[in-house]
Amino acid sequence: MNHAPTFCRVWAPATVANLNVGFDALGCALKAPGEFMEFRRVSQPGVHLVNGPNTALPLEVEANVAGKAAASLLHALGNPFGVEVTVTKSILPGSGIGSSAASAVAAVVGIDALAQAGMRRDELLPFALDGEAVASGARHTDNVAPALMGGMTLIDPQGKVCPLPVPTSWHLVVLHPQVVIKTAESRAVLPSQVPLSDAVNQAAWLGRFVHDVHSGNELEAMYVLEDLLVGPHRGALMPHWDACQTAAKEAGVRAGGISGSGPSSFWVCRSAEEASQVGRALQRVMSAQGMDHHLHVTAISSQGAHVVSQSH
Amino acid sequence: MNHAPTFCRVWAPATVANLNVGFDALGCALKAPGEFMEFRRVSQPGVHLVNGPNTALPLEVEANVAGKAAASLLHALGNPFGVEVTVTKSILPGSGIGSSAASAVAAVVGIDALAQAGMRRDELLPFALDGEAVASGARHTDNVAPALMGGMTLIDPQGKVCPLPVPTSWHLVVLHPQVVIKTAESRAVLPSQVPLSDAVNQAAWLGRFVHDVHSGNELEAMYVLEDLLVGPHRGALMPHWDACQTAAKEAGVRAGGISGSGPSSFWVCRSAEEASQVGRALQRVMSAQGMDHHLHVTAISSQGAHVVSQSH
Repeated sequence: MNHAPTFCRVWAPATVANLNVGFDALGCALKAPGEFMEFRRVSQPGVHLVNGPNTALPLEVEANVAGKAAASLLHALGNPFGVEVTVTKSILPGSGIGSSAASAVAAVVGIDALAQAGMRRDELLPFALDGEAVASGARHTDNVAPALMGGMTLIDPQGKVCPLPVPTSWHLVVLHPQVVIKTAESRAVLPSQVPLSDAVNQAAWLGRFVHDVHSGNELEAMYVLEDLLVGPHRGALMPHWDACQTAAKEAGVRAGGISGSGPSSFWVCRSAEEASQVGRALQRVMSAQGMDHHLHVTAISSQGAHVVSQSH
Repeated sequence: MNHAPTFCRVWAPATVANLNVGFDALGCALKAPGEFMEFRRVSQPGVHLVNGPNTALPLEVEANVAGKAAASLLHALGNPFGVEVTVTKSILPGSGIGSSAASAVAAVVGIDALAQAGMRRDELLPFALDGEAVASGARHTDNVAPALMGGMTLIDPQGKVCPLPVPTSWHLVVLHPQVVIKTAESRAVLPSQVPLSDAVNQAAWLGRFVHDVHSGNELEAMYVLEDLLVGPHRGALMPHWDACQTAAKEAGVRAGGISGSGPSSFWVCRSAEEASQVGRALQRVMSAQGMDHHLHVTAISSQGAHVVSQSH
């Protein structure tokens, strides 16, 4: 263990879940935004949380996503050392782009690195989910898996993670209006029953999407981002949703929808230029409505959370 | 046109639709059973139908699946000649393994060959669907596409056909109990609404199935043949269904379900030996119940309908 690092810095990506066509099943990692988490070995056993700049999270380990994930993995490793974890949130909580998932996966990647445990990503997943459960009350994998593994992932109903080929030609715009949509509210607007025909068609759309990305039909895959089950019910919660869709379409967007349970939205474009235009169009809508917002013009990240620097 | 054939013989495969995981969307062609259709140029314009051995179909062109499909394609080609079509049904109507689809696709393949039109399979599809509509009242593609193109096909809700990689290691048993389940009855047992959670999970299962066949995970693809939407409601219509499932499982089957709208069932095995065992087990159930039946121990056919012989 002489060469084990005493410090490391981990990057973790934001993620878009659902992607219209795969409610609770599909997600992708973004190149931006992302955030950093720092890990330092300390003499005192256990996990010790510190808030970084502009961060005000609870510092009790069991009440903190990163703390819980870190403690869960440390426990599995036999608590070989104590660690100080500095959490700096750049992916804003409540934004609908996997803020808690980023914290959860950064934590397990950092602990794995400090411990030189060499665990595979699929081995780290359950410990990250222990952290995610602190935020969402459930072991939802659709943000956690792409944040940990990178790229685009499909989660089957038993939790198995399937890494899909990444549509590298896609350019994404993510718009985050500064409003709060509670996950409970976002779930409450969903019907408990849906027409059989919608269920059958939604399955076929997801099947076709998976076929398209495997076949390298990246443009066609944009056009099959259909959502018959969820989006039609949630649109009413999204600020100025109709205006956003109209503006994005006029600017040349190929597909768009609600990221996770909102309020962020994602917009799929064929080129960086198209994405810039769509981004500007969406900003004009937000500005005209006096709505504070963040905008990210980005792409799918093939890399998930990973160590960016370490020292001994 | 001196070298155009004056006679040809076409083979067309039976098909299994739905395959549990893709209701109205998924289907595959079988190596057996299949059937032959013969085409002979005649001096009298139009389509002239003849029943082959053990076949008693209506001989009016518009009331006959093969006649309608042949006439539709001949019309599109400008009615260049008259043709006598001899239809011999080996895939029994009402069996639930694509009897009408086989007739429809054989007809267009035969006319295309006699006319030396050289049409692609996707170009022939709409004419085959004209024939299929005679039988089912609708342009259902889930049997027609694999019968025409071979292999395994996914149909999206807009009718686009996606050829999936064929799981060549699969061995299939098809059991056809000699009972009649009317398609209308089979549709009537389905609920108009289903739980959102079932809809979401069914989509994820189909997505995972498509991922697995594209990834060459042929064994895993067997295990994800889940059906949350349809099978649970239709099982009651299937003769001795629980006994069949129990016997097949004891004989080592990996997955099974209702073929199309029944009464045939399909059973997926890892080897020819396993398929033989499962077939014998199912036969014992049928025999113990005094139920006449046909059994086919087969595999997925990479080839769809095609010309097997021709003369000038």
